[in-house]
Amino acid sequence: MARLALGVDLGGTNARAAVVDADAGTIVAAHRKPLRDRSPSAVVEVIRDAAAMAAASAGTTLTGFRQAGVGVAGQCLGATGVVMNAPNLGWRDVPVGEMLRGALGIPVLVANDLSVAAWGERCFGAARGIDDVALVFVGSGVGSGLILGGRLHNGATGVAGEFGHIKVRPTRPETPVRRCGCGEWGCLEAYTSGVNVAARVREEIAAGAETRVLDLAGADAARITAGVVDLAYEGGDAYAIALWSEVGEMLGTSIANLATLLNPARIILGGGVLLGAANLAALVRRHLDEKVSRTAARGLTVEQAWLGDDAGVIGAAVLDRV
Amino acid sequence: MARLALGVDLGGTNARAAVVDADAGTIVAAHRKPLRDRSPSAVVEVIRDAAAMAAASAGTTLTGFRQAGVGVAGQCLGATGVVMNAPNLGWRDVPVGEMLRGALGIPVLVANDLSVAAWGERCFGAARGIDDVALVFVGSGVGSGLILGGRLHNGATGVAGEFGHIKVRPTRPETPVRRCGCGEWGCLEAYTSGVNVAARVREEIAAGAETRVLDLAGADAARITAGVVDLAYEGGDAYAIALWSEVGEMLGTSIANLATLLNPARIILGGGVLLGAANLAALVRRHLDEKVSRTAARGLTVEQAWLGDDAGVIGAAVLDRV
Repeated sequence: MARLALGVDLGGTNARAAVVDADAGTIVAAHRKPLRDRSPSAVVEVIRDAAAMAAASAGTTLTGFRQAGVGVAGQCLGATGVVMNAPNLGWRDVPVGEMLRGALGIPVLVANDLSVAAWGERCFGAARGIDDVALVFVGSGVGSGLILGGRLHNGATGVAGEFGHIKVRPTRPETPVRRCGCGEWGCLEAYTSGVNVAARVREEIAAGAETRVLDLAGADAARITAGVVDLAYEGGDAYAIALWSEVGEMLGTSIANLATLLNPARIILGGGVLLGAANLAALVRRHLDEKVSRTAARGLTVEQAWLGDDAGVIGAAVLDRV
Repeated sequence: MARLALGVDLGGTNARAAVVDADAGTIVAAHRKPLRDRSPSAVVEVIRDAAAMAAASAGTTLTGFRQAGVGVAGQCLGATGVVMNAPNLGWRDVPVGEMLRGALGIPVLVANDLSVAAWGERCFGAARGIDDVALVFVGSGVGSGLILGGRLHNGATGVAGEFGHIKVRPTRPETPVRRCGCGEWGCLEAYTSGVNVAARVREEIAAGAETRVLDLAGADAARITAGVVDLAYEGGDAYAIALWSEVGEMLGTSIANLATLLNPARIILGGGVLLGAANLAALVRRHLDEKVSRTAARGLTVEQAWLGDDAGVIGAAVLDRV
């Protein structure tokens, strides 16, 4: 019989719990619940309900598991189970590991969502059996998960991998320095995440930029996304070409520098922007190939993430193997 | 009686061997020999002679050691003992570990010189007892040694830590993209190493730049160094101020980004440029403090290297503890 494990993916709007076949890395049963109230105690209740439903669907109960793993979109203090900062949840220094242990009645391991996703890819996906791997995620946010020497790299205080908050300068002198959601200025995420690309395009259109992006979004500014910019790029829109040239250079060079510094055997690219905007992704790859040092490029392969949205629950379910 | 170990520091112009007290991290006896012929077999002979002399001074012989450790200014293929590329020696794919094992009659461990220095600082210096440490070196070259999770991070092919070869863009649009000694364009080292700073200043003076740097170098262009530029900066020289502003921003931001990505508990700064040009070092610190993400800054300390030029032989002597 398959060894079953319990994984939870806690985002800003949903909690998803899954019972995972820990040998095959496949989902046996899963349950997703929206977060209506984001207070820690309400979220813990939602997670408990989702986990209990998933367990029931798999024909077992919560106490049938040795432990649960949880990936949180936020900064986690390593093994303590404390979430230092989760902007989407509005959390600061929440001991969610301890709270969940009480609610679920089993030990709980907590880690950052991208670290968890990288671990999932290492165990069952695009990084299987590879000891030095960087997962780079460009979606609504930007971040990374680092597997170094076969282990999840958490850093001194558990906040390693904050790739979205390295500081970059625009390639065009006329581009203003942008403020990031984290409050700092010039973060890579402030120029390249889906949310920030859309915000910038809306601002620049409002300021008079000439582009077909708004038309392609059905004249509805709220529907502007990186995917729509990518369509405009494909159609030869000069504004989209200039924007993607800047965003592609920033992302490609930053990923190249990460590879030059860490010498991974594999880089895994994931997230809605990188997977959903093919022309941007091609520019990123071109800059990555051009800028990575020749020595780090030897033996480096680049792949798309395999597990997609399931990486969170699958990686969380096997956090005990970290 | 002290446990003795043998360490070798192989640079581009000298080999230095030392017998090290492996408990205290102090040098018991050392011997330095210049490299006249840089062919692998000649260098191996020089190392053997230097090591035999150091051993004799310490009242022992080579076969009295369990192994020798060697730090090489070049890219080393992890545990294989093969030096892939050592530009200062003109070496490509040299199995120096195997050759030295034959010459010394004991097992030999080979690693990159900055990895070795970082390990020396971890065992006996500015990083003692700290599990996540980056040593950043700015001297004639630029590089880093990374201790992550308590272990030396070598990367997939042993070339991790090539901080000098991450790609940067000048802060001033009029600064041309510079070619690095490695053959690539826009490497951090091409703008910030002692050798490259001096070369750039000489070029710009030859092209008509107005500055007191040449006067301060005794009207001898060959005597221009980062230290002389630092003197000119201190005297209010506008050229030196603009140059240091650019170099300080590049180094400070790059070190900040390394810290944001890896979340070390300590950064150790070493090398002749950072330790010998105090005004530049202050600018680097200011940019580092400004650009590092607030979360990675919590619990991060920055220190100067303690072991100086001895880090190489001391770290090499304890490579068996990596």
